[in-house]
Amino acid sequence: MEGATLFESASLWAVIVIAGLALLYAALLARGILRHDKGTARMQSVAGAIRRGANTYLRTQFRRIVALIAVLTIGLYLTAALAKQPLPISVGRAAAFLMGSLFSAAVGYIGMNMAVQGNIRVASAARRSFTEALRIGYRAGTITGMLTDGLGLLGGTLIFMIYGKMAPEVLLGFGFGGTLLALFMRVGGGIYTKAADVGADLVGKVEVGIPEDDPRNAAVIADLVGDNVGDCAGMAADIFESYEVTIVSAMILGLGLAPFDLKWIIFPLLVRAIGVISSIIGTYAVSIWPTGGDAFKAMDLSYDLSSAISTISFFLLAQFYVHDLRVFFVTAMGIVLAIAFNKYTAYFTHTAHPPVREIARSSRTGAATTLLTGLAVGYESSVWAILIIALSIFGSVVVFASAGVTFVLYGVALVGIGMLSHTGNNVSMDAFGPIADNAGGIGELAGMDPGARKILADLDAAGNTTKAITKGIAIASAVIAAVSLFGSFVETTGLQKTGLDIANPYVFIGMLIGGALPFLFSSLTIRAVGRAAALIVEEVRRQFRLPGIMEGTTPPDYDRAVVICTSAAQRELIGLGALAVLTPVLVGFILREEALGGFLAGVILVGQLLAVFMANAGGAWDNAKKYIEDGQYGGKGSEPHKAAVIGDTVGDPLKDTAGPALNPMIKVINLVSLLIAPLLVAHKTLPWPAIVALALAGVAVVAAIWYSKKEAVLATGKE
Amino acid sequence: MEGATLFESASLWAVIVIAGLALLYAALLARGILRHDKGTARMQSVAGAIRRGANTYLRTQFRRIVALIAVLTIGLYLTAALAKQPLPISVGRAAAFLMGSLFSAAVGYIGMNMAVQGNIRVASAARRSFTEALRIGYRAGTITGMLTDGLGLLGGTLIFMIYGKMAPEVLLGFGFGGTLLALFMRVGGGIYTKAADVGADLVGKVEVGIPEDDPRNAAVIADLVGDNVGDCAGMAADIFESYEVTIVSAMILGLGLAPFDLKWIIFPLLVRAIGVISSIIGTYAVSIWPTGGDAFKAMDLSYDLSSAISTISFFLLAQFYVHDLRVFFVTAMGIVLAIAFNKYTAYFTHTAHPPVREIARSSRTGAATTLLTGLAVGYESSVWAILIIALSIFGSVVVFASAGVTFVLYGVALVGIGMLSHTGNNVSMDAFGPIADNAGGIGELAGMDPGARKILADLDAAGNTTKAITKGIAIASAVIAAVSLFGSFVETTGLQKTGLDIANPYVFIGMLIGGALPFLFSSLTIRAVGRAAALIVEEVRRQFRLPGIMEGTTPPDYDRAVVICTSAAQRELIGLGALAVLTPVLVGFILREEALGGFLAGVILVGQLLAVFMANAGGAWDNAKKYIEDGQYGGKGSEPHKAAVIGDTVGDPLKDTAGPALNPMIKVINLVSLLIAPLLVAHKTLPWPAIVALALAGVAVVAAIWYSKKEAVLATGKE
Repeated sequence: MEGATLFESASLWAVIVIAGLALLYAALLARGILRHDKGTARMQSVAGAIRRGANTYLRTQFRRIVALIAVLTIGLYLTAALAKQPLPISVGRAAAFLMGSLFSAAVGYIGMNMAVQGNIRVASAARRSFTEALRIGYRAGTITGMLTDGLGLLGGTLIFMIYGKMAPEVLLGFGFGGTLLALFMRVGGGIYTKAADVGADLVGKVEVGIPEDDPRNAAVIADLVGDNVGDCAGMAADIFESYEVTIVSAMILGLGLAPFDLKWIIFPLLVRAIGVISSIIGTYAVSIWPTGGDAFKAMDLSYDLSSAISTISFFLLAQFYVHDLRVFFVTAMGIVLAIAFNKYTAYFTHTAHPPVREIARSSRTGAATTLLTGLAVGYESSVWAILIIALSIFGSVVVFASAGVTFVLYGVALVGIGMLSHTGNNVSMDAFGPIADNAGGIGELAGMDPGARKILADLDAAGNTTKAITKGIAIASAVIAAVSLFGSFVETTGLQKTGLDIANPYVFIGMLIGGALPFLFSSLTIRAVGRAAALIVEEVRRQFRLPGIMEGTTPPDYDRAVVICTSAAQRELIGLGALAVLTPVLVGFILREEALGGFLAGVILVGQLLAVFMANAGGAWDNAKKYIEDGQYGGKGSEPHKAAVIGDTVGDPLKDTAGPALNPMIKVINLVSLLIAPLLVAHKTLPWPAIVALALAGVAVVAAIWYSKKEAVLATGKE
Repeated sequence: MEGATLFESASLWAVIVIAGLALLYAALLARGILRHDKGTARMQSVAGAIRRGANTYLRTQFRRIVALIAVLTIGLYLTAALAKQPLPISVGRAAAFLMGSLFSAAVGYIGMNMAVQGNIRVASAARRSFTEALRIGYRAGTITGMLTDGLGLLGGTLIFMIYGKMAPEVLLGFGFGGTLLALFMRVGGGIYTKAADVGADLVGKVEVGIPEDDPRNAAVIADLVGDNVGDCAGMAADIFESYEVTIVSAMILGLGLAPFDLKWIIFPLLVRAIGVISSIIGTYAVSIWPTGGDAFKAMDLSYDLSSAISTISFFLLAQFYVHDLRVFFVTAMGIVLAIAFNKYTAYFTHTAHPPVREIARSSRTGAATTLLTGLAVGYESSVWAILIIALSIFGSVVVFASAGVTFVLYGVALVGIGMLSHTGNNVSMDAFGPIADNAGGIGELAGMDPGARKILADLDAAGNTTKAITKGIAIASAVIAAVSLFGSFVETTGLQKTGLDIANPYVFIGMLIGGALPFLFSSLTIRAVGRAAALIVEEVRRQFRLPGIMEGTTPPDYDRAVVICTSAAQRELIGLGALAVLTPVLVGFILREEALGGFLAGVILVGQLLAVFMANAGGAWDNAKKYIEDGQYGGKGSEPHKAAVIGDTVGDPLKDTAGPALNPMIKVINLVSLLIAPLLVAHKTLPWPAIVALALAGVAVVAAIWYSKKEAVLATGKE
């Protein structure tokens, strides 16, 4: 590469090799898992239905998206071409967009496939030993983690090696591809999983009075599929996106620092490469800790091991390659931030700590106090989350204060680089959740023996914790990534020089509109779940009326429920996707770049507060219910339990749909703004085709809101 | 006055006379009301208990505040003296602070006294005619409205006449006095009213199973008192504060525009004086409209009459005095904004419109769907509210675009001036709510005949609507006032010139912290209600165990419940008050003025979103319950009704405590920032006594949070 020293060229190749290593390790793990046995025919029949359902969902999703991707590929080409970029850049950006969406889709698709291959093998292994079941479940998750690492690192590095100093222009396409797919996987998956869950429960548990995971319920497989598409595919795509986007913004800001010194770009890549190696070592170690059956502790120790290896290596790299320990401090701060978020989220959502117990206690005076206490806990948790993030930005300010604002923003991007360097571990922990949950479901549906089911229940409990905890990291990393993108936006538009003055009424108005968007988005996603769930309710009711279903002599048509859920989720996400992509375009071209800057700040601030509130309030309600089910305050069936169930039902769409949807939304909006920024700067007045296009975009946004605001049929219930 | 034309001097005197007229009108109304009869001895006994309770509350409140006011008077003197202001300014600011708090206290105290004198007379008049009862109730409310107008206008104008161009320095003290009292009245009143309400219901309705307003319940009088201290005194102080603060910031910005042209200051004062006259005419007309028993419609027509008179007068004033129609457009926009907010709030909270009906329908599938639909409705309502506000700021931008940013900010202040010019009408409508509610309670407790009780029930229903609607105006005016104060802050700190750049990490961090504060405040106020309610629960339980209470032979000790509620509310507000006053001081002196600017923007944005969400979600849940009680979906006692009651109980502390507390919080924070702004600019390094003081402030904030975070005893319930 032009301008690179021998060491630097070698480093880049080493990064490519390490990215390949991550993919190879994923392949090895996959082969290892597929070799395990799949248990009895009955187990395989259940697992087969889940696998079919999951594949139906993803196939439908991808089929719907293909047309959109095609349109947007042209759009991406145009964003570069209209900004008078040379042809290789324009084509490169479009191609990188395709690559980004393909990689994101691959992470989701393969990851989910490994999850549905892993669940049955975990269930089968639980008949033999806890350790074996844990190892299979965790390693199946690690595959997704390694894919995230490998593909994210590979794409970013390749583009840089090909385009050199022009790489940022192309990287934007790569980032946007991943981000857009993540939005669809997150929102679609989130709506799917809660529609199936709520629909199955409302008819099964509430109306008919049969237990959860009862095989007579037509939506039970859709519910199990939902865990995979929401928590596994959706979450993996979301974290992949943050992983990618932090690389993109670190490179943009790094090139902005000193166009002739490549070390600012190569350092983050090397940090990530080191992270891959630490993650491989750490995740491999999970099954060798002598933790005596405490799955969560084993994962935690592995995380610490990875962190220790990385921190030492970052220091050596900063000292002997960059010759600047400041970059060590901020990347290490990223690692600390990730650990802090794990602990902090566990504090607010785990039954061992005061907040969840307070909610459980408050359910003794009924559902209203359960909800109020949960709201208070959730609101409070947002405050600490934002302070932790503010502190890490402040850390970057302190470290780089003397070097100027661009360095500080670069420092924030490096915090994100450090924070996600153990994505391998994080995604493993996260994907373990739905795998263990599904394994438990298979145990239930296939009538496995009590000993195995006890092991599966323990794994499921650990999975619930790890799943909840990684939500914190996902949000924090989304915010850090968004702040870096925001920095890149300010850099690109030249607002760096003129300043993005909040006292400028345009900026202030933009901020107000931006702040409103997460509220609108949340309102619409909550309604979307209601509408999709209503369709499932009708379907399950219909099937219960068929002869032989209730008696258990005829199996219900699981696939139909899966198909209904799938197409409902797909329909819902069109409006939400349009809103996220088009709103920044409208704000930018109508109110101009300064308003768009304020808009981004408003979206980040309010999006972060709401996302954390929803994730933690939902998680805390969920675990308060579990705490009571474990025998506190009268246990299952008591009045406090009923109150806690209401809390959990309210929290479910918040923590699994509306909250998580905000992460990709924040990033999509920032990336779209970054893509249109040069156009905004170059075209102060618009040609008429652009005005027509804007008007159409406005109509599309209004239509999207109008559609997504429609009342849920569910709400109408039975008269 | 120096530099004033003859017309201008005469105008100022005219404003003073009109302010006096408002006070005179209030006095006349009061005399008229006191002449009405007070009904039977039994009615008087109930009303007497309410009056005693209300007075106990306010006396305790004022006694607690006196010491704080004394300390802060010295503090206010210091803010001016340390910024090297001449002695008359420093003393004037301290004196104006005293005057502001005194006026605010007077509005609350007299207004509440008229409410508790009015309620019994409304109840008594209901035995004769609907129209008479409506007239008395509305006019009792108008007294508070006229006090607000008269005292606000008098104080602002007097200070300007005495201090001339130096007036802004002194006006800050006046504004802060009113704001601080409003914070205490709002937060204290909000905690009181919901603690009494929830406490009375939890034991009375839920545990013992007796109806609402049953005389055997010891907390029933505290509950009725609560309506007065929360909705009447708290709301009046809140609106008085916005009324005052918009005058203060219009004057600061007006003087900043052109120090030698007084028309920019005299115009807003004249606008407000016109508003007083329009309000007198409009409110007087309420009982003469032939609306055939529709109380709400009569108030609405009066509002339209006042608006028409004002709009025409504003036009004449702008054309023939200012010779600049732009000021007409923005003040008229303020009137339109007020009307728009009335309509918009009615849409989201009235049973006649889709949102409330959707919530009611969703309660057929249980409490969880009731809550989720309410959340979706509430989140959505915030979006439209913020868009309406953004639109009115944008209007000011369009009108004043060519004149520069200071003119635009002045335009925003004029929007606030116009918006609150009919405070007389707004406060009348608002105070009518608790008066009608109390009259209904007296009817119930004193066993009045069914015909009169039907009239009282109709008035109560109208009062519920007007009360809910004016919440919208209160929030919108708080935000507009805060934006004007924010503009003054930027002007005062000189950040106007350097810019308040969001991409500056300090500004961004400030914004994150500022955005977190409303979440923290809400979390703490929700808990505070829980703690105070727990004490009432214990007391009511204790009294029910006494012999003769349950049988109805011995009357319960109502006063004790009042005293417990009062002191609990007082205790709770200390921490919350400290948080609001000290946080901006800490952010300002530790992170400096730019971070403080970002902090203010964050507080305004998130505070507005949360306040509207809470007010409207709470109002909508409340009315969804009422809609079902009117016979929909099975009516009272049905399963949907139970679900709706849970929704209402969750919404109550949101709409009556946490949400309303955010209005004065936003304004206190902006005013404190404005007060310390010159100190921040002058003292780049701090002397050690200041550092010690800051450290103490930090400790106080931590202690306040720690105290306010404590778990409610209520949550522990009975084991």
